[in-house]
Amino acid sequence: MTTPQTARSVHLVSRPQGEPEPRDFRVVEEPVAEPAPGGILVRNRYISVDPYMRGRMRDAESYIPPFRLDAPMEGGALGEVVVSRSEMFAEGDLVLHNKGWREYAALGEAEARTVDPGRVPSETAYLGVAGTTGLTAWVGLFDIAEMRPGDTVFISGAAGAVGSVAGQMARLRGAGRVVGSAGSRSKVDYVRDDLGFDAAFDYHDGPVADLLAASAPEGIDVYFDNVGGEHLEAALHSMRNHGRIALCGMISQYNATEPAPGPRDMFQAVSRRVRMQGFIVMDHTDRMPAFLDDVGRWLADGSIRADETVVDGIENAPGAFLDMMRGGNVGKMIVRL
Amino acid sequence: MTTPQTARSVHLVSRPQGEPEPRDFRVVEEPVAEPAPGGILVRNRYISVDPYMRGRMRDAESYIPPFRLDAPMEGGALGEVVVSRSEMFAEGDLVLHNKGWREYAALGEAEARTVDPGRVPSETAYLGVAGTTGLTAWVGLFDIAEMRPGDTVFISGAAGAVGSVAGQMARLRGAGRVVGSAGSRSKVDYVRDDLGFDAAFDYHDGPVADLLAASAPEGIDVYFDNVGGEHLEAALHSMRNHGRIALCGMISQYNATEPAPGPRDMFQAVSRRVRMQGFIVMDHTDRMPAFLDDVGRWLADGSIRADETVVDGIENAPGAFLDMMRGGNVGKMIVRL
Repeated sequence: MTTPQTARSVHLVSRPQGEPEPRDFRVVEEPVAEPAPGGILVRNRYISVDPYMRGRMRDAESYIPPFRLDAPMEGGALGEVVVSRSEMFAEGDLVLHNKGWREYAALGEAEARTVDPGRVPSETAYLGVAGTTGLTAWVGLFDIAEMRPGDTVFISGAAGAVGSVAGQMARLRGAGRVVGSAGSRSKVDYVRDDLGFDAAFDYHDGPVADLLAASAPEGIDVYFDNVGGEHLEAALHSMRNHGRIALCGMISQYNATEPAPGPRDMFQAVSRRVRMQGFIVMDHTDRMPAFLDDVGRWLADGSIRADETVVDGIENAPGAFLDMMRGGNVGKMIVRL
Repeated sequence: MTTPQTARSVHLVSRPQGEPEPRDFRVVEEPVAEPAPGGILVRNRYISVDPYMRGRMRDAESYIPPFRLDAPMEGGALGEVVVSRSEMFAEGDLVLHNKGWREYAALGEAEARTVDPGRVPSETAYLGVAGTTGLTAWVGLFDIAEMRPGDTVFISGAAGAVGSVAGQMARLRGAGRVVGSAGSRSKVDYVRDDLGFDAAFDYHDGPVADLLAASAPEGIDVYFDNVGGEHLEAALHSMRNHGRIALCGMISQYNATEPAPGPRDMFQAVSRRVRMQGFIVMDHTDRMPAFLDDVGRWLADGSIRADETVVDGIENAPGAFLDMMRGGNVGKMIVRL
């Protein structure tokens, strides 16, 4: 396949207030850049859309710079090297990198990493269970929350990319009970029946505190927070002594236009000696080898599932993102180009 | 001095709703109990009144049982053994124990610990800087918040028993900047001029977030929380990346009759990788020897101050407690019998 003269990318053209809308994005046809000396040109096969991207749409200082307006957005992507001016990469190599939201990406040598499609059931695993998504679940559960065998573990967003993997990992490492929350009856069934959670509830069915207490009547030792808000408050109220909360994401608050309320009665964190720890997976890339040992074994013996929701075509990437933000995905949301 | 037939103690006679009132307490004259075989009778010299006691006035499960109604309350006390039926204690020994709020206490052998008045400038130090109060500050700052030299440290309730000690300890262990909050102009002066904090503010002077940002314009690395509520929210908003919060107490919420609001915009704990850790000093008594090494040295060379507010007479103990809850003390609040 020859490289075309032009290709499409997705630009952010306005900073959303509240829930993002299709008009905040534009698909733009642009010349395909030549790779610089030492660089490569990659044809993206799959791009990842993730909740944290909502934060990058704000013009605010954070752990990662905001997206620039009227420029291709960034994010995880998996593609094939089509032109190499680097000795580290050969044409045809499958690489993982962070210049998603575009059909072709010109990258420097240090911006891409070769991955071996033979090591995983499907190459898309590198965007999900065997990539940053899986590492997030693994680091949050085992390093941050220090989950121990026998622990009762609660995972919000349990049908989502990170949550679905975290719950399975908790089970595989000997959690005593794994409870999940999700946003629909079919997701609850998926979480319980397909992923093997011991219990799950639809958070629309009542106060989360009541639903959680019914699913974990003895309380919880670990909470993996993907949602924030009412979920975090409920988890705090269900915490056993010396419980640990991994603060991974708070998707319920990402579209907030006012500061979101915090968990009431924080004194429970004192009386129960609860630890709440925020983390960003980028700080923990040194754990990738240990993580890959675990997840590689689990993938090889089929003990972990890595479901995906796949949308076709870069022109549908904004819609995939919006849908994911509203909970339209099961497992990892991926756009296939 | 012969032991009297009867002596006074303070009973809790009703469970306060909101702010406790004098009528919730009663001073009762009762027979002085004989010590059991192997036990001791102690004449209390000093009793401690502390914020955590407010929690024990509620009829609710917590890390420590509620006070019983119509019975002497409990709490830290320092007294002299007047009758010993134990080989571990001699008459005249100075002992520390937890049966405060009474003039005489009959104790089992395991309920008291001999202390050496020669090791501290004043024996009351064992109720404050060299006792549970000091251990709370030391454990919270160094074990829980893992304060490191150079850190900017914020301490609320900085003129109180724990806060005044924590601020000095932070300075002595090389904090880069120590900022305190207190509830009056004179306390602010005391914290800055007498305790050596680098900056202090009166939290009545404006939004705590603004006052803190003005006192620590580069942000904070450690927050030692004695207050909760608006202070905790402000600290979270001023946190640097990888900041640590020791959740020690939340005195602003102890009289709350509704669940107190939590810190808004908790997502900042994620983006800044903040750790918030509740703790109870009772879990950390194994750290007493290491703590006493530090505090003994600081007391011996005069590098730490241990100010006290002393009230005379057991009949004034309820008033001392109520006054302490309203911030009427500087340093440790003690009742001298």
